[in-house]
Order: sequence, then C-alpha cells, then structure tokens
Amino acid sequence: MESGTGLGSTPSTLPYYVAFSQLVGLTVVAVTGAWLGLYRGGIAWESALQFNVHPLCMVIGLIFLQGDALLVYRVFRKEARRTTKVLHGLLHAFAFIISLVGVVAVFDYHRKMGYADLYSLHSWCGILVFVLYFVQWLVGFSFFLFPGASFSLRSRYRPQHIFFGAALFLLSVGTALLGLKEALLFKLGTKYSTFEPEGILANVLGLLLVCFGGAVLYILVRADWKRPPQAEEQALSLDFKTLTEGDSPSSQ
Amino acid sequence: MESGTGLGSTPSTLPYYVAFSQLVGLTVVAVTGAWLGLYRGGIAWESALQFNVHPLCMVIGLIFLQGDALLVYRVFRKEARRTTKVLHGLLHAFAFIISLVGVVAVFDYHRKMGYADLYSLHSWCGILVFVLYFVQWLVGFSFFLFPGASFSLRSRYRPQHIFFGAALFLLSVGTALLGLKEALLFKLGTKYSTFEPEGILANVLGLLLVCFGGAVLYILVRADWKRPPQAEEQALSLDFKTLTEGDSPSSQ
Repeated sequence: MESGTGLGSTPSTLPYYVAFSQLVGLTVVAVTGAWLGLYRGGIAWESALQFNVHPLCMVIGLIFLQGDALLVYRVFRKEARRTTKVLHGLLHAFAFIISLVGVVAVFDYHRKMGYADLYSLHSWCGILVFVLYFVQWLVGFSFFLFPGASFSLRSRYRPQHIFFGAALFLLSVGTALLGLKEALLFKLGTKYSTFEPEGILANVLGLLLVCFGGAVLYILVRADWKRPPQAEEQALSLDFKTLTEGDSPSSQ
Repeated sequence: MESGTGLGSTPSTLPYYVAFSQLVGLTVVAVTGAWLGLYRGGIAWESALQFNVHPLCMVIGLIFLQGDALLVYRVFRKEARRTTKVLHGLLHAFAFIISLVGVVAVFDYHRKMGYADLYSLHSWCGILVFVLYFVQWLVGFSFFLFPGASFSLRSRYRPQHIFFGAALFLLSVGTALLGLKEALLFKLGTKYSTFEPEGILANVLGLLLVCFGGAVLYILVRADWKRPPQAEEQALSLDFKTLTEGDSPSSQ
C-alpha cells in the first residue's frame, strides 16, 4: 500500500548504506561457509561435523537476519505500518528458529562427545543473548502486534524495545567474535601466532562481523533516516491518544 | 558556572543510572585487579609480570575512563558548555595515555619473550580501536576545542563524532572480551571446561564488562536525558550561524 508524500521519501544516500550493509552481511555468511568448508570439513548433522552447524546457523540467524530485521523500518518507508511491523516480527522469528537449530546442534554435539556445557564466556553470553532475544520477541509481539496494548503503553515501551533490540544485536556480534576466537584457539593453539591461513581468514571474518554490526548501527541511529510517521497514522494516533486519555476523539 | 533553568534540570532517575554505571565500572576495574593479583601473580614492569600491565591499563583507560568521558554531557548539565567540553577532552586524553602504557607493555613483553605481534583477532581489533580512538580525539579537538572550525562545520560533524565515539567504546568492550578469552584459553586450555575458579571469575568479569557497556550506552541514547542547549548558548549559536552564513549578527 503506497501512501508516499514528501515526508515519506527515501533520503538520497540511505540506499547506498543499506546496499553496503547487505554486501557485508552476505560476505559474512559466505566467509563463514568458506571457513567451515575449507578448514573444518564442511557441515553434517550426524558425525563430528555437527558442531559446524552451530556457527553457520548463528551467523545466518542472530547476525544477518537479526540485523536485517532491525533495518526493516529504514528500508520500507512508504508501506503501511502494519505490513512493515509484520515483516519485522517475521524476520526476527526466522532468525530465532534458525539460531535455535544452531543452539540444539552444539548441545547435541557436546552430549554425544561427552563435553561439558556452558563453561565458557562465549556460552554464557550466548545463552544470555538467546534467552533475552526470545523474551524481547514475545514482549514485542504482545505490545505491538497483539491488539490489546493501549497507545500510551506502546509509546512508553517503544524506546525500550528499540534500545534492547539494538543492544541484543550488538551482543550477538560480540558473542560471535568470542565463539570464533574460541574455535580458533582450540584448534590452532600456538600455531595461531605463525599466521596460519585459517587464522588470517577467521580474523578477516571477525573484522567483517564488526563492520556489519557498525553498518547496521549507523543506519539505525541516523536521526534523519528514521521513518517519518505517515499522515493517516498521525491522525489515528491522536485519536487513540484522546481515547486512552479518556476524552472523546475529535473525529471518527 | 551555574545557569540552570527548568530546561537544564536533571531528570529524576538519571542519577541512579549514572551511579549504577559507576558501580559496575569500578567493579570491572577491581575484578580485573583481583584476577591479575589472585591468578596471574600481580603486576610489574620488569619480568614476565609485565604482560599484566596490559589488561589493567586497557580496562582503566579504554573501558572505564572512555565510558565516563562519554557520560560527561549527561552528568554535567548546568556547567558552561566549554567547561564540560574540556573535561570530555581531558578524560579521553587520560584514557588514551593510560591505554598507551598498556599497549607499550604488551609489545615490550612480546619483544622480550620473542613472541609474534598482531596475529590474533584481539590484536587486530585492538590496534584498530587504538588508532581510530587517537584519530577521533585529534579530529574532535580540531573541530570543537580549537577555535578555527565554523558553526556549520561543527553542526555537521557533531552527529558523526557522537556515533563514532559510541562505536569505538563498544568495540573497546568487544576487544576486551576477546583479550580476556585469549588469556583464559592460553593458560587454562581444556581445564577451562572443568569450571576452574579462574575461569568462572573471568567469565563474571566478561559479563560485568558487557553490563558496563550496556549501562553507558543506555544513558547515552535516552533521548530525554540529552543535555538541553542553554539559553545563552542558543543565542550565541544563532549569532555564529548568522556570521558563518554571511549576514551580520542580530545583536552583539
């Protein structure tokens, strides 16, 4: 549903930044695949290769898809707010399901190999991010997609939702860096310091992850790139506001 | 210099959040000291203990002081803008000098021990943060403290300065997590998975670092906690604006 006015027009440089973020994000996924294929024997659910499902799923789910879900309101500026909202929620749901497969893979692998769970800083940060991500999705769904919440409740919760969403994304990037480092040090040990090709490739992957996190954050916080409220939404919001504050609406 | 009006008054819950951030920040420094003292033999410039100067200086400089430098504009709301600006620049300068000592310590230690430099993801991220932090300080100084830059140039650069400042702080926290993980895995190896006390203490330190980063970021981005421009600054800014745009100022 197009209802674009001058207000809803796309800032001229925004598409280049979005394209750059997508290029970096897809490169992150591709380099993760290349690393696992070239140096870790590829991916399978059975056998020791099950571990490799973990980094790939986490990078696709909690890095690339989560990042893109945050950008939905910057990219879809003229579509109906509800459509954009559903897309935002759906992308986060996909991100959660894919990363759930990644989490199950590593716990199942640990169980089969007899390894301990949840002892490392990577795992502590990871489980924290994963649980909070699910809670954030549930709370976001109840407030913004479920029809019960009042206008004033939504307005008060919105800034918190945005802050915690961005913070969880950044913590996901940090947790991925910790996991990458852990995987490198467990396998390479002191050979890491001899500039092994795997070490260099993984370091480049780490910098790409940082770059993707930075690009998404930049697009998100640019004040002049925020999605402006559409004319009919503003009118509707005012009516809701009047309703929730107890007066009768100015127009129906 | 107090010139507080209703506009410049401190939001009621801000002091509690600032106090919380300081409590977490000081705990981070204390736990880093405790970790190095209890499990790494303490600190010295000569001998193998020289390495330990590195984490302590980086945590004090690039985590605690850098974080506090970002909060200066939220805490000092009624002081003259120039005073606040000088304090912001000075805190960043202290942070840089202390972290320079930390960087020199680790390079000197590597040289004495014959270890390779700059092979790990931690070192790549670290050197990137450190160089960019210095560049950000220099550019910030030239634009905001040196009297040459025009009002319009300052206004255009300000949002970039704020974004890159926050991004460098977050990258510093991420780099500290990577360094902590590296130090743990090099020493503990597979013993890390047996829930060694050092591992657990270091994991807690990692979570505290994340918590400090989150607290500083939250205080920084709360829209209603931003420092409002003071009446005389607004008038002065308008004069500057008029001057730089070529007209004569409305009043002298």
